[in-house]
Amino acid sequence: MRLMRIGDPGAERPVVAIDTDSYVDVSDVVTDFDGAFFASGLESLAATVSQRVAVGEVRRFAGERVGAPITRPHQILCVGLNYADHAAESGQEPPEEPIIFTKAPNTLVGPDDDVHIPRGSDATDWEVELGVVVGKRARYLGSDEEARATIAGYVLVNDVSERTFQLHRGGQWVKGKSAETFNPCGPWLVTPDELGDVGDLAMWLDVNGVRRQSGSTKHMLFDPVHVVRYLSQFMVLEPGDLINTGTPAGVGMGLTPPVYLKPGDRMELGIDGLGRQSQAVVAAP
Amino acid sequence: MRLMRIGDPGAERPVVAIDTDSYVDVSDVVTDFDGAFFASGLESLAATVSQRVAVGEVRRFAGERVGAPITRPHQILCVGLNYADHAAESGQEPPEEPIIFTKAPNTLVGPDDDVHIPRGSDATDWEVELGVVVGKRARYLGSDEEARATIAGYVLVNDVSERTFQLHRGGQWVKGKSAETFNPCGPWLVTPDELGDVGDLAMWLDVNGVRRQSGSTKHMLFDPVHVVRYLSQFMVLEPGDLINTGTPAGVGMGLTPPVYLKPGDRMELGIDGLGRQSQAVVAAP
Repeated sequence: MRLMRIGDPGAERPVVAIDTDSYVDVSDVVTDFDGAFFASGLESLAATVSQRVAVGEVRRFAGERVGAPITRPHQILCVGLNYADHAAESGQEPPEEPIIFTKAPNTLVGPDDDVHIPRGSDATDWEVELGVVVGKRARYLGSDEEARATIAGYVLVNDVSERTFQLHRGGQWVKGKSAETFNPCGPWLVTPDELGDVGDLAMWLDVNGVRRQSGSTKHMLFDPVHVVRYLSQFMVLEPGDLINTGTPAGVGMGLTPPVYLKPGDRMELGIDGLGRQSQAVVAAP
Repeated sequence: MRLMRIGDPGAERPVVAIDTDSYVDVSDVVTDFDGAFFASGLESLAATVSQRVAVGEVRRFAGERVGAPITRPHQILCVGLNYADHAAESGQEPPEEPIIFTKAPNTLVGPDDDVHIPRGSDATDWEVELGVVVGKRARYLGSDEEARATIAGYVLVNDVSERTFQLHRGGQWVKGKSAETFNPCGPWLVTPDELGDVGDLAMWLDVNGVRRQSGSTKHMLFDPVHVVRYLSQFMVLEPGDLINTGTPAGVGMGLTPPVYLKPGDRMELGIDGLGRQSQAVVAAP
């Protein structure tokens, strides 16, 4: 399945995309794609969608805004330097175990919403990433099989970052990762059965039509199953938690000289099977 | 006012403490002490409590468990090295601006709940701290007056930490701050009008009856108003967010040789006006 939330910010309704033109509305049987929904499992929703498709209860998209496919999560966890080429461009050695940091959960926005350059920023940057959505409460996962069963699905995210805030304002990265609008997500949450092999998905990001990032999930140092199992040794994961699994080379900080975002820019990005995003860059009001 | 939540984990009800023996039940007028409650302001609750006290609608505590005085927040933010003596014992220079890190929000537990030593831990440590609860959505606060008006109240917290996970497992502190039960909070949220001057509160922590931390909020490098205003330049604060403002000297890591928690230990801690906590230390199940 491909889960979506469409409608105005704060008033999105949950739907399931059938193809690029049409969807099944499930807002009568699902309150929202939130932690409680993921904890209850997706099986009954799949049955509902099949029934509705069979009887033609399908609607056409009519230009509605697309929101993030999940509600604000309990936490947004991120893996740092999870692609060897990005570690190199950041002047870092590839890490021996996953580097973990967080973003404020209220950074979550829709895939095509504006991205704000924070006040005082001089180094706002882009990062196309594969996101993992947690499907059940998880602690001390003991096997890769358990970790795999914990994953509800995958999403496309842009892990927007302010490099000066992140690296030159006092030590911990969260400060440069948490500005409002800094986590565009969507358009879809794609379930593992529908996505297939997550280990070789092409990913790309353009700024103003110039290709800046071009990579593949096959170059990840720690794959999603490893990351989920690893995280569960340090904290309890909750249903609906979002994990950004890291970005390949090509961020603005890695260019010579560095290139950062400015008002009027446009970012476009995508991952095979997970759709695409398009964000206008504006100054924070 | 002193807000409390009493009852079994996950089924606490909101009350307002009148003294050490008695309280006013407000669970009929307040769903819970959550973000929506703080956003609506505390004035109407104060009026309700005054009316009920006047007509004798006061109950006596009967040994109920005490939960954290707030529901799970949108985020738990922490200030690192915010006391010069603790920076020194950590081998660090006092920071030029606040160091910010986060804890998983699901670490929040009641003031007297058990604290679990995580599996694989060899360095679980204590930190008595003044916690600040955010009362309204806040972005780019422009003055100390605005920041002060953003504070709903103060709480006692124990910012439990695993030093090996925090410092020797890959770079960002969140990994050593987020294990389940790692943020005892309460017994009360005390409103600023009731607490009075927050700038000179004695704080202490004992392990097995031995005084380990003994400090005062007067030695904070960045006071709560500064911290709230500062944070709002980097992210949007939400009502109900919790900010742990840092710990004074005397943590286990700072002793020679270091002393860490083990199953069977007991921590007791307190801050003037904010009550006291007592936690049994047990191995994570």
